[in-house]
Amino acid sequence: MSDVREPQVGTSAESSARPAGEPLRVGVLGARGRMGAEVCRAVDGADDLELVAMVDEGDSLATVSGAGAEVVVDFTNPDAVMDNLHWCLERGINVVVGTSGFTGQRFDRVRGWLSDKPGVGVVIAPNFGIGAVLMMQFAARAARYFESVEIVEQHHPKKLDAPSGTATHTARLIAQARAEAGRGAVPDATKDELPGARGADIDGVRVHAVRAAGLVAHQEVLFGTAGETLTIRHDSYDRASFMPGVLLAVRSVPQRPGLTVGIDALLD
Amino acid sequence: MSDVREPQVGTSAESSARPAGEPLRVGVLGARGRMGAEVCRAVDGADDLELVAMVDEGDSLATVSGAGAEVVVDFTNPDAVMDNLHWCLERGINVVVGTSGFTGQRFDRVRGWLSDKPGVGVVIAPNFGIGAVLMMQFAARAARYFESVEIVEQHHPKKLDAPSGTATHTARLIAQARAEAGRGAVPDATKDELPGARGADIDGVRVHAVRAAGLVAHQEVLFGTAGETLTIRHDSYDRASFMPGVLLAVRSVPQRPGLTVGIDALLD
Amino acid sequence: MSDVREPQVGTSAESSARPAGEPLRVGVLGARGRMGAEVCRAVDGADDLELVAMVDEGDSLATVSGAGAEVVVDFTNPDAVMDNLHWCLERGINVVVGTSGFTGQRFDRVRGWLSDKPGVGVVIAPNFGIGAVLMMQFAARAARYFESVEIVEQHHPKKLDAPSGTATHTARLIAQARAEAGRGAVPDATKDELPGARGADIDGVRVHAVRAAGLVAHQEVLFGTAGETLTIRHDSYDRASFMPGVLLAVRSVPQRPGLTVGIDALLD
Amino acid sequence: MSDVREPQVGTSAESSARPAGEPLRVGVLGARGRMGAEVCRAVDGADDLELVAMVDEGDSLATVSGAGAEVVVDFTNPDAVMDNLHWCLERGINVVVGTSGFTGQRFDRVRGWLSDKPGVGVVIAPNFGIGAVLMMQFAARAARYFESVEIVEQHHPKKLDAPSGTATHTARLIAQARAEAGRGAVPDATKDELPGARGADIDGVRVHAVRAAGLVAHQEVLFGTAGETLTIRHDSYDRASFMPGVLLAVRSVPQRPGLTVGIDALLD
Repeated sequence: MSDVREPQVGTSAESSARPAGEPLRVGVLGARGRMGAEVCRAVDGADDLELVAMVDEGDSLATVSGAGAEVVVDFTNPDAVMDNLHWCLERGINVVVGTSGFTGQRFDRVRGWLSDKPGVGVVIAPNFGIGAVLMMQFAARAARYFESVEIVEQHHPKKLDAPSGTATHTARLIAQARAEAGRGAVPDATKDELPGARGADIDGVRVHAVRAAGLVAHQEVLFGTAGETLTIRHDSYDRASFMPGVLLAVRSVPQRPGLTVGIDALLD
Repeated sequence: MSDVREPQVGTSAESSARPAGEPLRVGVLGARGRMGAEVCRAVDGADDLELVAMVDEGDSLATVSGAGAEVVVDFTNPDAVMDNLHWCLERGINVVVGTSGFTGQRFDRVRGWLSDKPGVGVVIAPNFGIGAVLMMQFAARAARYFESVEIVEQHHPKKLDAPSGTATHTARLIAQARAEAGRGAVPDATKDELPGARGADIDGVRVHAVRAAGLVAHQEVLFGTAGETLTIRHDSYDRASFMPGVLLAVRSVPQRPGLTVGIDALLD
Repeated sequence: MSDVREPQVGTSAESSARPAGEPLRVGVLGARGRMGAEVCRAVDGADDLELVAMVDEGDSLATVSGAGAEVVVDFTNPDAVMDNLHWCLERGINVVVGTSGFTGQRFDRVRGWLSDKPGVGVVIAPNFGIGAVLMMQFAARAARYFESVEIVEQHHPKKLDAPSGTATHTARLIAQARAEAGRGAVPDATKDELPGARGADIDGVRVHAVRAAGLVAHQEVLFGTAGETLTIRHDSYDRASFMPGVLLAVRSVPQRPGLTVGIDALLD
Repeated sequence: MSDVREPQVGTSAESSARPAGEPLRVGVLGARGRMGAEVCRAVDGADDLELVAMVDEGDSLATVSGAGAEVVVDFTNPDAVMDNLHWCLERGINVVVGTSGFTGQRFDRVRGWLSDKPGVGVVIAPNFGIGAVLMMQFAARAARYFESVEIVEQHHPKKLDAPSGTATHTARLIAQARAEAGRGAVPDATKDELPGARGADIDGVRVHAVRAAGLVAHQEVLFGTAGETLTIRHDSYDRASFMPGVLLAVRSVPQRPGLTVGIDALLD
């Protein structure tokens, strides 16, 4: 952790006024949790970022403002995150949120708070994995050009749900892209099926969930048309894989006033 | 096609008496069918084999004996194959059969005919693909060492059954190998499943059937244990892929008196 | 092939004047070649297209104008294609070209001809495979977000060049995207290398060429960053795979006056 | 770790005299090293094994005999392992060795010591990964049936050598199997090669080494013949993957007097 310097009143939210070349000052809430600790390491290891505050349960949020944080990263819990967000926004501090539990109602409350703070940005993302986000973008884009598409996701056998949230979300994006392109049903002549063999049907897209020891989190989207297939595969082994996405959000949020949901919009 | 020479009485079934270095004389029944035509091309292209007879509906079987065939390959149809087999065995000609429709009863009849012909061999195989057979052998062998296993088969969307016969057979071989090794159920914590997501259950092995335009015939068997996975994958694009297995059977059958079912036993 | 009707003077180049709902009238040059014959089948099988002329060596181009073709597809040869193009453009017929041999000089000549025909479009593409084009687009897009990238292409063993033109082109697109994003060299600690093990170096991107019987044309682009990998794979088995791209060009060209090189721009 | 009970004189080496159903008593040398600690956890977690001694630098080997260990697992270092082995064999204790640095000379010395101890077994293995060993066995077995074969290994970018030792060993096994089956050179028409594109040549087998962040240790062996390919892939993420092989060796060694090199022979 970097040393704490005096807060510089008024600068935190005005990114355009930041001295060029100075590292961006970052505070982390939930710093002793698994994701939070990983974020601290990632921020600390980036030349253009400075870790100025590590806060966890029992610590005072004043540490964050006292340290002059320009961006706060929140990986706490659904019960704490709204208060944290409100506190930061009142002080004009940009926020990147990885904590889960966001609903339409919560997004609306955040938008309300932001309407009084025109220069301040918030990025809330359910998944900071750039690879996963690209996989979904590419899948949505390829969907309109291929006759067939199926998803095979593969996870460790302790996973409770099948298919994964990512697979379900991908299937919906694909179904929507097919509909927009005027594509009808995926061809399938199956007459004689052992129950379950053809997977789950999500908006007309078949999704198969493989569970095996040794696996972590993987997904394959297979597109096919006469004579060719296109496969997009994402393999995730480690929560370290979320860090490039978190850092991208940290670097982007001062230039993105208002609420941004998901890191898709940050990728271009 | 090679030219037809005079039949050499008595030599056809006595492979040990064959002049060393002379090509093995092969006749094909169903020579104008898709598989039969492919067999004719494959035999014709092999230095150690000589294509001496091509017979199809309307032709006389006498062509085969007249040409001195030592081995006959039958890719005809279920209605014709038993008569063809009987005719060949009576004349001491070895037979390789790829025609489908064989039941336990039919195997018994062939064994009965063979009991009178101690030097003659018959190989009947449902699948001549060496790759597919090796995939199944390897899967059965690996099954006892891994905690988890699942099968994903992938075929063109005109296929009527799901999963494929090969996948079903592979699952049964794996289940049997696990049982013999005293392995219990594959671990699976799934609590919340969209119907079909976890595939079909064949003797405790989950099997997923993917159908997409652009695919031909593919199968992947995934084994996993803490920290590692082993994947065996077979991709078949073309019936040419069956020819090495047919030629292996043709070359082996003179040395294998009696009935051999499947080409597994020929691989070693 | 559809029946030939009377030419309708003046309508061929004015796509906006086409009666809504009427199929687009298409002529094929090089209709008896392998690609041309495939194009004829594809056009004939599309509800919104009508195959009005099939022309090959020895046939008169007048067939095309006589049949009122609105779009001509040229899969002939480098010696014939420029004359064909000129002939079509003079008559205000849109052209889709799959014939190879185009250079900067040839493109300039086509642009010159088109400058006199403001409503007419030409699409010239080295590769009509939508899957291959998407693979390259996705690879170029992912390139900036990942620390590492390598390409493994796999082809049949009769291929003369290694790596393939597609792999070389993909590597260059990736190298350019990395440079634009300010990414330095791909990390690689290799000290002790058996010559060739690390592949060919194309603008800093390692490319590996696998050659094996049973393969057709395949390419995998692997991106990696700490904890995750993203893989984009394209498998092509058959020239049928180029047809969706050809038909897309046929349908698009009347709405795209001027010269379009590659089908990338048609995909959106 | 289990509690230490009184040594039972004379039973340690006489596995046949072990009370049925009692767990096998295991000691670990190098218990505080990364591999050793993992072995301790694995032994402790197995119902049929009892961890009776954990020894590392500075501890006395007497702990092992004092605890009545029937099998000792050595993951120490090349300088210590020979003394450890000698000490154990003198006391009739079976040994499983994962320490590296074994040469033909060292194997000879171990055989010499064992010649005086007919009932005692030693297993020395360079790699306890069952998945990797099966991959090599399957590759060697498939080699004779396919026209083509190539190896693609994939590792993290901090690896110093390319290709990996496992890939080199696999290539040699394949080359040997092809030679024994009378197979000639792998077909390859490459005329125009960018240096390195076709990989390293190990006894006629092409090997490609991919290095990318996000990867751990992976290997793919691709076999091909007209119309089909067979792929054997091993993915290793974690040293936990070696534990099933270590436990297999521990359970097997009391029934295998003499020296066993590698765990191949234990797999059946």
